[in-house]
Amino acid sequence: MTASARYGVPLDLGVSTDVLELQLARRSVREFTDRPVSDAELAALVAAAQSAATSSNLQPWSVVAVRDPGRKARLAELAGAQEFVARAPLFLVWVADLSRARRLAEAAGTPLDAADYLETTLIGFVDTALAAQNAVVAAQSLGLGSVFVGAVRNHPAEIAAELSLPPHAVAAFGLAVGEPDPAEAADVKPRLPQAAVLHHEQYDAAAADEHIPVYDERLAAYFRRFGGAGTWSSRVLARLRGPESMAGRHTLRETLAQLGLPSR
Amino acid sequence: MTASARYGVPLDLGVSTDVLELQLARRSVREFTDRPVSDAELAALVAAAQSAATSSNLQPWSVVAVRDPGRKARLAELAGAQEFVARAPLFLVWVADLSRARRLAEAAGTPLDAADYLETTLIGFVDTALAAQNAVVAAQSLGLGSVFVGAVRNHPAEIAAELSLPPHAVAAFGLAVGEPDPAEAADVKPRLPQAAVLHHEQYDAAAADEHIPVYDERLAAYFRRFGGAGTWSSRVLARLRGPESMAGRHTLRETLAQLGLPSR
Repeated sequence: MTASARYGVPLDLGVSTDVLELQLARRSVREFTDRPVSDAELAALVAAAQSAATSSNLQPWSVVAVRDPGRKARLAELAGAQEFVARAPLFLVWVADLSRARRLAEAAGTPLDAADYLETTLIGFVDTALAAQNAVVAAQSLGLGSVFVGAVRNHPAEIAAELSLPPHAVAAFGLAVGEPDPAEAADVKPRLPQAAVLHHEQYDAAAADEHIPVYDERLAAYFRRFGGAGTWSSRVLARLRGPESMAGRHTLRETLAQLGLPSR
Repeated sequence: MTASARYGVPLDLGVSTDVLELQLARRSVREFTDRPVSDAELAALVAAAQSAATSSNLQPWSVVAVRDPGRKARLAELAGAQEFVARAPLFLVWVADLSRARRLAEAAGTPLDAADYLETTLIGFVDTALAAQNAVVAAQSLGLGSVFVGAVRNHPAEIAAELSLPPHAVAAFGLAVGEPDPAEAADVKPRLPQAAVLHHEQYDAAAADEHIPVYDERLAAYFRRFGGAGTWSSRVLARLRGPESMAGRHTLRETLAQLGLPSR
């Protein structure tokens, strides 16, 4: 039962579908075989992505499919020197894209002032995420694995230049896609117990947080299996400690504004 | 072939899986039968949500499951007076939640200064969206329909009070869930042609935007079927015209900061 791996503890959800089993079994894939991702598969991922909901049908995103080895290598370097980005047969850069609407407004000679506000920038990122998650699930159904790469936000201006992004379009995250190498040492990562994240009617922080210590132990055991250390709590605290733990992304607000996604 | 409905034009993607067909067939469901959503189904939706990727395993989200009629009615009113929120058997409020990490840091006596930056607020919203989209797909596989409700951001402070959200936790969006009423007059909404959103190697705005006029015609025909008017372009321009078209959300940046999700 895949729910048990997802929570790191024996668990039967009581309902089951093939889709659910597929979703529960998702893991981050960073090692790929040489099999290319075909144009038909790419079209299927994008069709799935476009089938996700989007606020007011704005469709404020685009995706750049990168297969060129040189470009993948440069993107890998810009995204935290993560070599698997270059080794993936396909690297999708998901773009929060208000530029399409900006161009329409410019052609029509009408204002588009709502695009200056944080709300609209958030819609751009949220709708891009909804779309990309659908692509992840579609990829899995085609036998493809993937991993998100948030580190494209380490150097958004350089990424935009590499991809010739127009003003008002910013790489939200990357997604490395390919056939999983069965030799990769990786597994489904256990998540927080449901009772830590699911509330009924109203939020109950004390009841939810009671489940963190047991999860800390569970995840520490998972990390040890792969030679790592720490608990969930210790890693969260290290990751969010301060600007020095953000790989340059503490300047994101200014950079987004420079690239045309302001947050008024 | 469901891809044809998705694009409003005959189309064969060349690859197909059951999962893909399910995704392509998604539509927004706003009319529901009386069948309740069981606790087992709810647990399955949350397990699917937790199976989505999350940046550095931060898991910066929570979800509040609302079934109480009075609370649903109050949330419906706060979310743009959209009555289907009250009529849905289950209303899930997806919460961008940095409060768990803030509480850990407070207990440990360590700083959590990265949580002050826009980057971290964006991670909160993006990871919440990845999770929620997985829930949407899982729901579909269980025969349940859904629709996102971004209007919970019209009055974030009032929503937070209704749900007893702690500081540093904000409703990102709602999701009304239930068995679709087969009598609802609604259909799969056609999206932009793939060539308008998918770029190869580098972004090509001129080539992409060539596909907008035909989509405008296609969507105008779709709107007419349901008694509506306008083109895609005209609706995008109206929606993003200015702060007056944002249903109060032009103040979101200040409100988020007051609720503890700043965007430094």
